[in-house]
Amino acid sequence: MTDRPTALDLPQMDPLPDATQRYFDICVEKLGFVPNVLRAYAFDVDKLNAFTAMYNDLMLAPSGLSKLEREMIAVAVSAENRCFYCLVAHGAAVRALSGDPALGEMIAMNYRVAPLTDRQKAMLDFAVLMTRASATIKEADRATLRSHGLSERDIFDLASVAGFFNMSNRVASAIAMTPNPEYHGQAR
Amino acid sequence: MTDRPTALDLPQMDPLPDATQRYFDICVEKLGFVPNVLRAYAFDVDKLNAFTAMYNDLMLAPSGLSKLEREMIAVAVSAENRCFYCLVAHGAAVRALSGDPALGEMIAMNYRVAPLTDRQKAMLDFAVLMTRASATIKEADRATLRSHGLSERDIFDLASVAGFFNMSNRVASAIAMTPNPEYHGQAR
Amino acid sequence: MTDRPTALDLPQMDPLPDATQRYFDICVEKLGFVPNVLRAYAFDVDKLNAFTAMYNDLMLAPSGLSKLEREMIAVAVSAENRCFYCLVAHGAAVRALSGDPALGEMIAMNYRVAPLTDRQKAMLDFAVLMTRASATIKEADRATLRSHGLSERDIFDLASVAGFFNMSNRVASAIAMTPNPEYHGQAR
Amino acid sequence: MTDRPTALDLPQMDPLPDATQRYFDICVEKLGFVPNVLRAYAFDVDKLNAFTAMYNDLMLAPSGLSKLEREMIAVAVSAENRCFYCLVAHGAAVRALSGDPALGEMIAMNYRVAPLTDRQKAMLDFAVLMTRASATIKEADRATLRSHGLSERDIFDLASVAGFFNMSNRVASAIAMTPNPEYHGQAR
Amino acid sequence: MTDRPTALDLPQMDPLPDATQRYFDICVEKLGFVPNVLRAYAFDVDKLNAFTAMYNDLMLAPSGLSKLEREMIAVAVSAENRCFYCLVAHGAAVRALSGDPALGEMIAMNYRVAPLTDRQKAMLDFAVLMTRASATIKEADRATLRSHGLSERDIFDLASVAGFFNMSNRVASAIAMTPNPEYHGQAR
Amino acid sequence: MTDRPTALDLPQMDPLPDATQRYFDICVEKLGFVPNVLRAYAFDVDKLNAFTAMYNDLMLAPSGLSKLEREMIAVAVSAENRCFYCLVAHGAAVRALSGDPALGEMIAMNYRVAPLTDRQKAMLDFAVLMTRASATIKEADRATLRSHGLSERDIFDLASVAGFFNMSNRVASAIAMTPNPEYHGQAR
Repeated sequence: MTDRPTALDLPQMDPLPDATQRYFDICVEKLGFVPNVLRAYAFDVDKLNAFTAMYNDLMLAPSGLSKLEREMIAVAVSAENRCFYCLVAHGAAVRALSGDPALGEMIAMNYRVAPLTDRQKAMLDFAVLMTRASATIKEADRATLRSHGLSERDIFDLASVAGFFNMSNRVASAIAMTPNPEYHGQAR
Repeated sequence: MTDRPTALDLPQMDPLPDATQRYFDICVEKLGFVPNVLRAYAFDVDKLNAFTAMYNDLMLAPSGLSKLEREMIAVAVSAENRCFYCLVAHGAAVRALSGDPALGEMIAMNYRVAPLTDRQKAMLDFAVLMTRASATIKEADRATLRSHGLSERDIFDLASVAGFFNMSNRVASAIAMTPNPEYHGQAR
Repeated sequence: MTDRPTALDLPQMDPLPDATQRYFDICVEKLGFVPNVLRAYAFDVDKLNAFTAMYNDLMLAPSGLSKLEREMIAVAVSAENRCFYCLVAHGAAVRALSGDPALGEMIAMNYRVAPLTDRQKAMLDFAVLMTRASATIKEADRATLRSHGLSERDIFDLASVAGFFNMSNRVASAIAMTPNPEYHGQAR
Repeated sequence: MTDRPTALDLPQMDPLPDATQRYFDICVEKLGFVPNVLRAYAFDVDKLNAFTAMYNDLMLAPSGLSKLEREMIAVAVSAENRCFYCLVAHGAAVRALSGDPALGEMIAMNYRVAPLTDRQKAMLDFAVLMTRASATIKEADRATLRSHGLSERDIFDLASVAGFFNMSNRVASAIAMTPNPEYHGQAR
Repeated sequence: MTDRPTALDLPQMDPLPDATQRYFDICVEKLGFVPNVLRAYAFDVDKLNAFTAMYNDLMLAPSGLSKLEREMIAVAVSAENRCFYCLVAHGAAVRALSGDPALGEMIAMNYRVAPLTDRQKAMLDFAVLMTRASATIKEADRATLRSHGLSERDIFDLASVAGFFNMSNRVASAIAMTPNPEYHGQAR
Repeated sequence: MTDRPTALDLPQMDPLPDATQRYFDICVEKLGFVPNVLRAYAFDVDKLNAFTAMYNDLMLAPSGLSKLEREMIAVAVSAENRCFYCLVAHGAAVRALSGDPALGEMIAMNYRVAPLTDRQKAMLDFAVLMTRASATIKEADRATLRSHGLSERDIFDLASVAGFFNMSNRVASAIAMTPNPEYHGQAR
């Protein structure tokens, strides 16, 4: 195995644009490493920026869904798609944000066994339904979310996060993206 | 039915930011209407911009895959996911870009019957494999693409487009996005 | 590609029996062409007659289900089976009989998004259930149909039409039946 | 339970048309009973005649496929669809025509364990592929059949029989058709 | 074909240990033959004893589920997994224990058509749910069983029998275990 | 949540039989706790003994498959079935036996990404094929195993381990067995 973040031979821009270099420096400072998903996109500045702009808006911007809830959606979807990269990286995030290592394992292995609130279960059920059979979603499914207190905007955010990981799971598997080894031991 | 582009009650920003208004004006000028997918995101400028930046890079930027090929990937993935919005909007694009109305129908209904080149068939096979069972993708699948002449970058672009529509198909179905009626009669 | 209606080399009877010739002449007069499904069976008069007798009884004889409803069942089943021939030929019929081009697209792509009556939705749900998992059908499923006003005979007709297209979809795909190109532009 | 052949309340024509009565009399004479599938259609002479015309042509007319092979296709398809009626009635036919009770059980339970010729295995593989995923059939699948000696007409007959039971399995399950009890003990 | 009970070349212990010989003698005395599943394990006394200890406890020890009900669970699970060995051997047991040949066929072909009590239907529904999608089982599914009168121990026994045949079905298919021909004609 | 090892109210034998008590004492001494799967069976000594006899023979007795390989099979099967209990308990075993925490995660999330030998990949492919579609296994699948050096006995052992976890995964999910929390942090 090499140090390449994926199975594709797409060398990183060299040198990195200044803004990218600063972003990667912040990653190293905060996380101790540059997540391989960023390295995977770093052969092209437009693709990298498009990815990070969407990712950061979805996962970090203000929302009626907490950051932990958004990470739980990411992991439940990634479990359905069996995406190794995303399960490792976002499983670590669920453990860290919740302070509950077992919770991360539950969501990554079978979210149905996790001791979640009814609202959270409804959110993950919807995210998994989107993953498995989105064409069958009907008004009653959205009504269930509303009955658990989700606003119109919350439903949009839930759909967007679940949709995003259906994209990135597939890209990661298609190009064999490898997670940074540092994730495995985090927050155990 | 209302004029809302989705089942969610998320009113458009009012007034639209200047750059958004200009973008929508260009849509009207070129297409005759603002695609409902843009109207669906127009309640929040960051989400709209993140979506359009990624979409425009994927579908319009230079690539070893032609614009028609990228639209064929979009439609083959959307057919697998049975996404009404994307089949209508991107089916019209395949008909228009190819000048072959029957081709658009073939890709939207069952791409396996379409008279494609072997390289194109391999691309659509990979896109559909990503859609149905991405976790099973292995080096041999990428090797098949390379044997049909796809470069490393071509594979990245193929994976990215197929991934993107696995996201937008699911978001569209989750929130019941309705395609603009103008698409139906185009390029028949 | 040749002018053969299927992938099989089964030449048409020559000359056609008189009754068959008259039937084909009527097709040309009314439709402008002989549907390829009839040409596909025209190598054997008994097979052709058996097919047309069953088809005409199911789709044209008096029934509690309108001709448009029977065509909608045909298209919903064909969409589930992704049969190119039947989606093209019967999709055109839905557009023509309904005068609503978008309706034809909805049924062909994902009938769940179509603005149907509850009775029609129940009919298509049953037809798709027959297509995907007929062994799981139970009395409660028939009771649902009755609660929407279907008579015993209506249920029989619904089952027969849905069953028939599960046959013809599979035969068409098995032998690569090609739809007449005239269908694509009709009733758009 | 009643004596009705299905879950639907559709009384038989009374009296039966002369030709129908004669046909049923022959059944009683040859089989000892009128198969319930015929009784199920006997509320309407046109539907009954269309069904029997197609059935008799497919299963009894001259063909490159023996009558036993056509019954094996019927049973393999019915097993895939888990149709109780057809498994019972046609399982008995396989036992009777082959003189091998175990063979009938193998085809009804899992045809892959049966000691068939390669040509027969190819036929049943194709019939089951038609049943599960007809849209994926491609020229290579027909080429496999040809490599086992099937003629163009044989492929048509194979496709027609497999298609027919995909219809009748679904109709039988949809209306809860019950097989005549006499079949169970036959040719054991 | 040979007399080997499976596709593997694993000769039986020779001589058999005394206890095994006595057990096999009893089989011959009671059944007329040694079931091939026992012969399949008879290359290793520990494996044979572990199998028979678990099997005899599950199927023959006192339980709130009758022996017939346990055999019905075995057959319903084996039908879902299409295991030829188990369908033949345990199908014969259902016919023998119930005295109803048609019942055995129903459970082996599609248990949903069998005239069972609601409690029995609930048991078989649970066993089949375990077979198809065990990860989705939730408290409500156990509550349904309790509402039909199953005790905590009954649920354990149901789960254990359904689990066991999910093991033995797969082992039997993996090594091509062949049922003794004597089963086919029993209790018809 | 309670201290019960499953969702069923089946109190442990009290007092435990002497041999059971000694076995549980050894567990505490070696592992620090009694695995909940043993506590789940401890309401009945025959069921507990049958389970442990089979388990210990399969996982610990001499075999051409190493203990680590048997644990990898356990985890790959449990991943396919999404069994939380077995993924946690046997995932820990893979990490401990291999000394490679990342390997345990790979097998638990998607074994296809793990850097295994071709022989090991073939073993896990077979175990997963047994899990998903055992009825389709044919001689060619066993031949593949033999071509990777598996003996007849190795194939039996592979089939037995894969079969066993298809049983215990389903039992665990059916009765909501909860893994001991100690596993989560082990061998990270």
